This record gives sequence, C-alpha cells and structure tokens, in this order.
Amino acid sequence: MKRIKMADHRVSCGRDFFCVPDLAGALRNATNGGFDFISVPICHPRYRREFLDPVPNRTGAFTRSDWTNFEFVSDWNSLIVGKTSPWLNLDSPNETVRKNSEQALHQELCYSVHLSLPAVLVPLKSYNCANLAHHINTSITDTHVQQVWVHVSMKSPEDEYDKHLFEDEDEVTANKLEKDPWEWWNLFRTICANSRKVGLALEISAELPSEEELERWCGEPVKAAMLSTSLFLTNKSGYPVLPKAHQALLKKLFRLNTQLILTGVNKYKDKGLGFYYQYLAHLYQTQPDLDNVSQFAKGYEDYLQCPLQPLMDNLESQTYEIFERDPIKYRQYQKAVYEALLDRVPEDKKDSVVTVIMVVGAGRGPLVRASLTAGEETGRKVRVYAVEKNPNAVVTLETLKEEEWNGDVAVVSSDMREWDAPEQADILVSELLGSFGDNELSPECLDGAQRFLKDDGISIPCEYTSFLAPVSAPKLHYEVSQSNADTSKGPLAPFETPYVVRLHNVTVLAAPQPCFIFTHPNRADRIDNSRVKSLEFEVKTCFTLHGFSGYFETILYKDVTLSIRPETHSEGMFSWFPFFFPIKEPQYVTAGSTVACHFWRKCTTKKVWYEWCMSRPAPVPLHNPGGRSYVIGL
Amino acid sequence: MKRIKMADHRVSCGRDFFCVPDLAGALRNATNGGFDFISVPICHPRYRREFLDPVPNRTGAFTRSDWTNFEFVSDWNSLIVGKTSPWLNLDSPNETVRKNSEQALHQELCYSVHLSLPAVLVPLKSYNCANLAHHINTSITDTHVQQVWVHVSMKSPEDEYDKHLFEDEDEVTANKLEKDPWEWWNLFRTICANSRKVGLALEISAELPSEEELERWCGEPVKAAMLSTSLFLTNKSGYPVLPKAHQALLKKLFRLNTQLILTGVNKYKDKGLGFYYQYLAHLYQTQPDLDNVSQFAKGYEDYLQCPLQPLMDNLESQTYEIFERDPIKYRQYQKAVYEALLDRVPEDKKDSVVTVIMVVGAGRGPLVRASLTAGEETGRKVRVYAVEKNPNAVVTLETLKEEEWNGDVAVVSSDMREWDAPEQADILVSELLGSFGDNELSPECLDGAQRFLKDDGISIPCEYTSFLAPVSAPKLHYEVSQSNADTSKGPLAPFETPYVVRLHNVTVLAAPQPCFIFTHPNRADRIDNSRVKSLEFEVKTCFTLHGFSGYFETILYKDVTLSIRPETHSEGMFSWFPFFFPIKEPQYVTAGSTVACHFWRKCTTKKVWYEWCMSRPAPVPLHNPGGRSYVIGL
Repeated sequence: MKRIKMADHRVSCGRDFFCVPDLAGALRNATNGGFDFISVPICHPRYRREFLDPVPNRTGAFTRSDWTNFEFVSDWNSLIVGKTSPWLNLDSPNETVRKNSEQALHQELCYSVHLSLPAVLVPLKSYNCANLAHHINTSITDTHVQQVWVHVSMKSPEDEYDKHLFEDEDEVTANKLEKDPWEWWNLFRTICANSRKVGLALEISAELPSEEELERWCGEPVKAAMLSTSLFLTNKSGYPVLPKAHQALLKKLFRLNTQLILTGVNKYKDKGLGFYYQYLAHLYQTQPDLDNVSQFAKGYEDYLQCPLQPLMDNLESQTYEIFERDPIKYRQYQKAVYEALLDRVPEDKKDSVVTVIMVVGAGRGPLVRASLTAGEETGRKVRVYAVEKNPNAVVTLETLKEEEWNGDVAVVSSDMREWDAPEQADILVSELLGSFGDNELSPECLDGAQRFLKDDGISIPCEYTSFLAPVSAPKLHYEVSQSNADTSKGPLAPFETPYVVRLHNVTVLAAPQPCFIFTHPNRADRIDNSRVKSLEFEVKTCFTLHGFSGYFETILYKDVTLSIRPETHSEGMFSWFPFFFPIKEPQYVTAGSTVACHFWRKCTTKKVWYEWCMSRPAPVPLHNPGGRSYVIGL
Repeated sequence: MKRIKMADHRVSCGRDFFCVPDLAGALRNATNGGFDFISVPICHPRYRREFLDPVPNRTGAFTRSDWTNFEFVSDWNSLIVGKTSPWLNLDSPNETVRKNSEQALHQELCYSVHLSLPAVLVPLKSYNCANLAHHINTSITDTHVQQVWVHVSMKSPEDEYDKHLFEDEDEVTANKLEKDPWEWWNLFRTICANSRKVGLALEISAELPSEEELERWCGEPVKAAMLSTSLFLTNKSGYPVLPKAHQALLKKLFRLNTQLILTGVNKYKDKGLGFYYQYLAHLYQTQPDLDNVSQFAKGYEDYLQCPLQPLMDNLESQTYEIFERDPIKYRQYQKAVYEALLDRVPEDKKDSVVTVIMVVGAGRGPLVRASLTAGEETGRKVRVYAVEKNPNAVVTLETLKEEEWNGDVAVVSSDMREWDAPEQADILVSELLGSFGDNELSPECLDGAQRFLKDDGISIPCEYTSFLAPVSAPKLHYEVSQSNADTSKGPLAPFETPYVVRLHNVTVLAAPQPCFIFTHPNRADRIDNSRVKSLEFEVKTCFTLHGFSGYFETILYKDVTLSIRPETHSEGMFSWFPFFFPIKEPQYVTAGSTVACHFWRKCTTKKVWYEWCMSRPAPVPLHNPGGRSYVIGL
C-alpha cells in the first residue's frame, strides 16, 4: 500500500467509481486528474451470482477479467481500493439472502486478497450488523486481507429528516442505537475487538453533527474520509470549494493521516475533476505548521511507552540529552531559583550571605547550570551541591565542573536518601516529576532529602498535582491488548499498567480534574504518601470509555509553574507526554451519564503502585490490586 | 470453620450480640439455647482508639483480653464470627475519619486473623463504598482472613419509606444506585472481582421485595441470612413463627447452604431464645426431600466441567455406567422405537417383515436393549446392528450379545461415518446429544450415517433444538476466571469455552429461547450444519450478566421427547446438566433493557466450534473467534 499510504508533504486523495465499464481507463483518467488511487466495485454488477438456489452449476468467471489488464503501470493493484457489492445483507432475516451474502462476501474478499488490494471498502448500513462483523473478523484473521475500511455515514439520513418532527422522548431513546451511525460503527469495531485491520471510511455529511460528535469521530481510526462532490460550493471564480466547517473538519482529519475519497458526479463538466483534487491539495498545503511539541512528538503519536523507573534503573545518556533540550523547563527552573534567591537574600546582604543550593538528582547538570545562572543574574553568592546517584552521569558532572562551571560547585555521587550532607541547604532543587506528577517517586525522594534542608528552606518544586480525565481510545486499547507484557505477571498485566503516551487519535471526554496533591517540604509528624481519590465526570455524548489520561501541574516557586494539563500546558515544553491508565474492558457509556472512578496511590517501604476501579455508570473491578501487575520500586 | 460450616442434616444458626460484657458467658448461653455460633464485635466499643490525631502514644491493649479466656471448649474461636466496628467509615470525605477508619479496620481484621475467626461481618451502608471494598480486597489477598461476610439489608430503609411518596421519575433513576442495597453489594463484589472469600450476609427485611428481586438475591453467594426477632409473629400457642413468605424465602436459602444469624432482642422473656432456634430447626427439617435430579447432582452444584468430546476421546466405562442409570432416557427411547415399529409394520405383516434397526454409537448397549425390548413388546421382528467406534465398549457389547441378548444382533466395531453397511436400515437410533443439543456433533455423525438409512427410514431422534437464556452467576464467573486453562491457548481461553454445569447459585434472567435446530435425516442437496442466531431478551430488574445458560429439547419420534429446558424438563432425567457460555467481562444491565446476543455454530471438515457476542445493551467483543480457545474435533 505504498502509494496509498500518505506521504506527509501532500494530500492522498482517491476517486470513487460507482460502476466501471473500463477499469484501466478509469484508473488512467483518475491519475491524470491528479488522484492517487481509485475505489471500484470488486465484482461487476452485470455478473449475477447465485450460491444456493438454484445450485450453482455455472461455467465462466464470476466477474470480468479486465482486473489484470493494466500494461501501463506495474503496481496498479496498489492503486485500487475494492468495494464489496452493495446488495450484500449478511444480517437479513431471510436465510437465503443471508447465506448468499455470506458466500458472495467471502468470494469478493478472496478475490481482493488474490489481487493484493491494499484495502476493501465495506458499507455499514444499520445497527443490525453482528453477522457482517463476525464474517469480517473471520476474514481479517484467516486471510491476508490487508485492511477493511468500514464505510459509515457521519449522520444517518433519517436523522436529518427526523429531528424536524416531534417525537416521543422514549421512542428516541429506544431507537438511538438504530439511528446513530456511530453506534453501528462502535458495535462493529467492538465485535472485532478494535482490530488494527478494521478502519473507518467516514462519509462526511452536508450538515455536520455537533462539536462533541465530531470530536468523537476524530477519536476513531478514520482511514478515509468520503467526500461527495455535492458538498462543494462554487466560489466567485467558479471553482469548487468546501464550506468553512468542512474545511476545519478536514484539517483535523489530516492530522490523523486520513486519506480522502471523492464520490459523486462532477458538477463542472467544462472544468474536469482535477479542480476538486487541486482544491483539496491546496487545503492540505495550507495547514498551519506543527507547534514545537507536535514536531518533537512526530512519530510517537499513540505509541505506548512504559513509564521510566529512574530510581531502579539508571537513565541512559541519550534520555538525559533529549530532556535537556527542552526550551521551557529549565528556563522556568532558573526563574524559580532566581525568585527564591531574591526572596531569601536581601540586596544589602548579597555579598555576605552564601545560599546553599542542593540539586538532588542532578543528572548531567542542567539544574546546576540553571542555579549558577540564577546566582549570577541576582548577584547572590551560591554554593551548589550536585547530588546524583547515577555514577555514569557523575562522570559528566565532574567534567562540567572542571571545564565549564565557574563557581562553588561540589559533585556528590550518592543517593539523596542516604547522603550525609556536610551542611544544611537553603534551597533544594529537583526534577523528579513524571507525567503523572508523583509517579517517579518524587514524594519519597524529597521526603528522604529534606533532612538536610533548613527549617525555613525552600523546595523547588514546592507542590504538584496530578490530573485525570476519561478518554475514548480504541486504538490504544487494542495496542494494550496486543502488548507483550511480562508473562510471569499474568494475562491482565498489560491492562493494569499505566503508560506514557503522546495521545493523538483519542477523544478526551471531560475536562481533567485534580487527583493527588503533594507539597514539599513535608513537615507532618508522620508522613503518609498514600492517597485515595474519587472523581466524577459528566459526559454529554454516548461513547466507549477505554481508560483515563493523566497529567500534572507543578508550582516550582510562587507563580513559576510547569504544566502538561492541556488547559494550562506550558507552551513549547515537550519533556512529558501524558499518562494513560487503561481499563480492562471498554465501557459503553450513554449520553448524560456520570463516570465515577477511584484511584489509589499505595506505598510500602519497598514500592509504590496505583490501583483503580470505577463505580459509575457501572462497576468495574479493581485494577492492579496489591501491585500485582505494576509497581514502582523504591 | 468446621463447626459453622453447615452439616446437611440440621440448620446452622448463630446468635448475634450487639455488645458483649462477658464473651465466654455469651457463647455459653447461646450454645445452651441450641445455637451453633455467635457473632460479636471484634473490638469492645468501650476502648477508644485513635490513630492519627492525636498521635497514638497509648499504653495498654486496644481491646479487652477475654477473647482468649475460654476454658470450657477447645476450638471456641471457630464458633465466633467477628464484627467490625459500626463507626468505621472508609469512604468519608473527611480525611481524618477515613484514615482512622482504614487503620481501625486493618487492626480489627488482623486481630480476627490472629484469633483464626472463621468469618468477619462487615456492614455495607451505601453505594459509596469503593475505598472499603479496596481495603477488604487488600486484606483477602494479603492476610489469612478466611471469609468476609458483607452485611447488607435486603431493602434500603429509605426505600420502604419513599415509595409511598410521589417522586419525580428522573430523580428516582438518578438515585437508584444510592437507594438499592443490591447495587451497593453488586459494586462491592465487582470491585473485589467476585472473590470467593467475599460472601453476602443478607439482612432479611420485614416487607419482602418483589419476586424478581428475591430471585436476584438468591443468585448471589448468600453465606448468612440475618433474621431479626422482630420478623417473628406469635402463633396460637404463644411461640415464635415466621410469616409464610419468609418461610418460603428461607427454604430457598437453605438450598444454598445459607446459615442463619438471629439478631435483636428476645420478645419472649419467659421462654428463652431457644424457641427461636427450635422453630428455625423445625423449618429446616420440614424441607421437601430433594428430587431425583437434585439427589443425583448433589456435590456437583456450580461445578464447572469441560464438555465431553466423545468423538475425539473414548468414554470411560464409568461414564457409560452413570448415564445408563438414568431412569427416564432409555424408557423414552424404548417408547420411540415402539411407536416407530408399529407405524412401520402393520399388524398383518408382523411375521413376514424384519425391521432393520441400527444403533449408531451403541456404547455398552442400552439402546440395543431398548430396541430389542420394543421389538418384543410390539411383536415385530427386528435385526439390530450395534455400531460402536470405542473398541473398549465393543468388548461389553460382544459379551452382552453372547450372554444376555436373545435375537438377531450384530456388533460392529467401526466409526459410523466410515462403516460399510451390509444393508439399509429402517430405523437409525442414536444418543449423540450433548447438553446444548448439537455440541457433541450429532449432526455431523448422523449426516455421515444416513447413507445406510432407507429413503423412507426413520432417525431417532428426528429433531433437536438448543435453547439459551441470560444468567447472572457471579460465583461461576469467578470460577471461570480461576480455572487452569490450557495456557497455550492464551489468557482468554477460560472465558471462550462453554462448560457443562449444574446451575445452582445462579439467576436465570429471562425464559430460554430456541437457538439452533437440526432435523434428521437431512435430505438437503448440500448439507450445511453451520448456524447463526440472534436472540433478544427483555429483563425486568437491574442485574449483572455473566453469561448464557444452554439447554436442549429433542423429538425422538412424534410425541416422544426428551428435554432439559427447565420449563419442559423430562421429570427425573439426570443425564444432562445445562451448558454455560461465559462472557469475558460481566455486563451491568439496567431494569427494562434488552439483552441481545448472537451465537454462531461454525464448521470445517475437521472441527466445529461456537462463537458468541452481544450487541445490547452494549457491544461485547466476539468470543472464541476462529475457535481459538475451544473447538470440538470431528
């Protein structure tokens, strides 16, 4: 599917044919018009095929043979998306129709495999689709079908008609599953266990649905957007253009690498189809450039990573290097130290007082550099201790101390929880936060380090809060189900592990809410870093819940903050991707219901872990009880 | 828990104490009154315990020491059920209350483990119980707590009050979870993944809920029924008796081996508590005797068995022996052959015509015997072929032929699908049905055998139909999750396998509906034994769905039938227990909704298997796609 797969620099757009008298000619015409591929029926409708009644006893092929008659291009088959016959009805109550449809579908899919077609378009016309989904599921596991694109209308045609009529409320609810094409698709996808081979070919409607519904579609694996020529308006110069709302939708879909398929008749006979293509290509070209974070995240979209365990494992040099490149994070740290130094040492004492700054978890030195710079900028004298447990990073620290850093720096090769400090610190600077705030055990480390912080000393950061939001993420859920987890931990382990992931083809269903809060230094008599939190989210639209996204916000010092919560995200900071807590079985949630989840942070002297469950709209068992699938080692 | 575990011949009834000044005395009094055990608070309420504020710094024990002061009986601790403190509130929004409660619960559970108490009673007072469930779940995995009995009222006290008031419909729905104690219990149990260690102590209400709700409670693991003395009426002789409805409920609960706990004050000071006990013991004694099937099934209740694979494996002699003991099955077969012989051979030809009966799958001969007897009874001449593929069973057949059977019997050691018969049969008799009708591949075997059936020949059985019903079965679901399935088949295999099981602690949620139908002989040009069926069930009450129960009915000949469908069950026949198709994740279903399921029977030339999924109320993925977890070999 090389040709059809989207190249990043230009749009990929196909042309749909309802019926093709001359296959080679159709392909030639489409490519001449600029189109990248065509979609055509796999079987010519002229060929009648019976399977059951009467008993087949035909001579001759079941479809025309011009499929293999392409002299002009060698990998022609990769330029064609096959369409199954529109008359197939595998869920007919009539057994003859059903069995005929089953066998015809099988024949068509086998032929498309024979031809190595990159994708097969299958129309989905009602909620009554369990048998169709079953047979497609059989094909994707038993045959080499590459991809099935399920063709679904964004809006039921009925829907547009009905909403102008008065209807009984109850009846609307009862018929919801029947009328909402998203429900059809959700059922189909779920029956097929969200398989990667099943994609969505979304037919864009003239009147677009609500913003929530559009967002929901954009959380699905939209492989293709079907655009009818009837959607286009004619601009002042007489050329086809799309309405503003449709332009905005396409730009969202482009970010998902969605390809386009133009359907319907050319309304501009004098101009040729090429003008539609040119308009769509123009739309693609005029997308705004990716922001800093998106550029950095390129290629990591929806890619599941296990959270770092910096306490148990030593980070690699490359990991340090990537994080050090963040343009925002260390600027904020430097500003926080700057403010703290000014607050701590008045102007008239700046030459007499030396402020002791201890950087705990110094890594390859970025916070040492930030502290030294803050000292210079404020004119305050500082003595910096760089405490680092990773002996490999200490090598770099020692070199930097010799070759780059002017000033009073001591490099200490030790775990901050064990170090016997020679003096008390004024300021403790650390960067121990994970995507979910406390998940790299910052609380436990700083509790251990605050022994050598003066009673009135400052911790940078001084507070952090994790956040959670319910998400629909069928693609991620499938990836989790396929992940090769440590088999010694049992089959549930992949679903009981949180991931770090650049959330992309995902719908966040409600605004994130605060979860766990930690403050430093912690002067409580008995420090308890265990937590429990119950959260409730109201959701407007029907959807399937696949888990919870996690974020954090931190106050470094006073008004100097860092955040990866979408609403307050530090602009341009790329050091953290969000967290993702999956749930074992996707939960179907109806519109207007409440999602209630419960999260625990559990600790022993050796390890920390999370547990989670749900109580609304329906009970969901405890995930990761006792840390059986995932713990963070102390 | 030897003493408390119910002996079959008498009731097990405990006496509850709200507060016990003298533990040994209380136990002595209770046992003197006939009671089997007592339930008492683990910690004496006089002892105030603080954990957080102020910092604990106490001297002395946290409860009295008389727990170990029992000279009069050696295993006294097995006679005591401990109760956690009523003030515990682990789900309080107040953090101090919550943490105090967590630590007090931990202390009390640890003490009960220290004393080896057989069970701990924990009260459940609201839907807001996620943190309580979490901590109980931690205890049952981390400690040696034997059993936790969650004490739940059958009816919310509020409920009885509110239903007399007018209320807004919407509000009722919104508060349903809060008001229905079954919802609390369902959440609690689900969070704990239906663990075997978590049982239900059901407090019986004065006004009993609807029949559906009672049925739902009886599908839960009711370990104890809490009976208040206030439920009792006084009979003419001045003794305590229960209302009729309560008697009926208790008799249902006795079948689940539920123990009783008497709570509340003695209303008959002159008579002593013993009279309550005597009444309950009487109620237990006067249960009707178990029917034939229940007696046979004793000990097999809710025990999961893998369906037989008689085609791939040879049955053991013992298996034959058990089935041959069925008093109904072979009587019906004999009747069917009798009717068929009379229909086939008129009285005036009975001496000239020999009817050829072929018993395919003759086993150790019961159908041969039935056929010979039918021949004698009708006075018709018969020649019987006993075809059996299991060479071990053939040994028995040959012996019976020599020693017992008078008449024209030929024993054939062959697979019926391969046997080259010397003549055509008038009647083909087989007993190849499984609990789900076709699941032991009767269709495929009989299709193979009908080659040697005359064109107008008769197959006994001539038709069979499988049936399905949605069931709630938390206990079975837990057993499935714990089953040691073939690990090579992947972690889902136990949930993608049907089981044969004597359904007992289970609620069937709607009447069974017909699924697959097969008729014999099958004269179709092309025989297709694959099937697909969609079924819809309306359910009245909120519940959790754990799978589907399966049954069959068969027509042996005309009006001679066999059935294991509950509504038409052949009285006294014990050869088949029902089928159970689990679903991976329990589905919460609200009252008044539709459950739609889809079942497939798939076949290749080598194997047969089932696939299943759901589309209502919410989509559920396909189970066992491609037969990845379970197939029946041909």
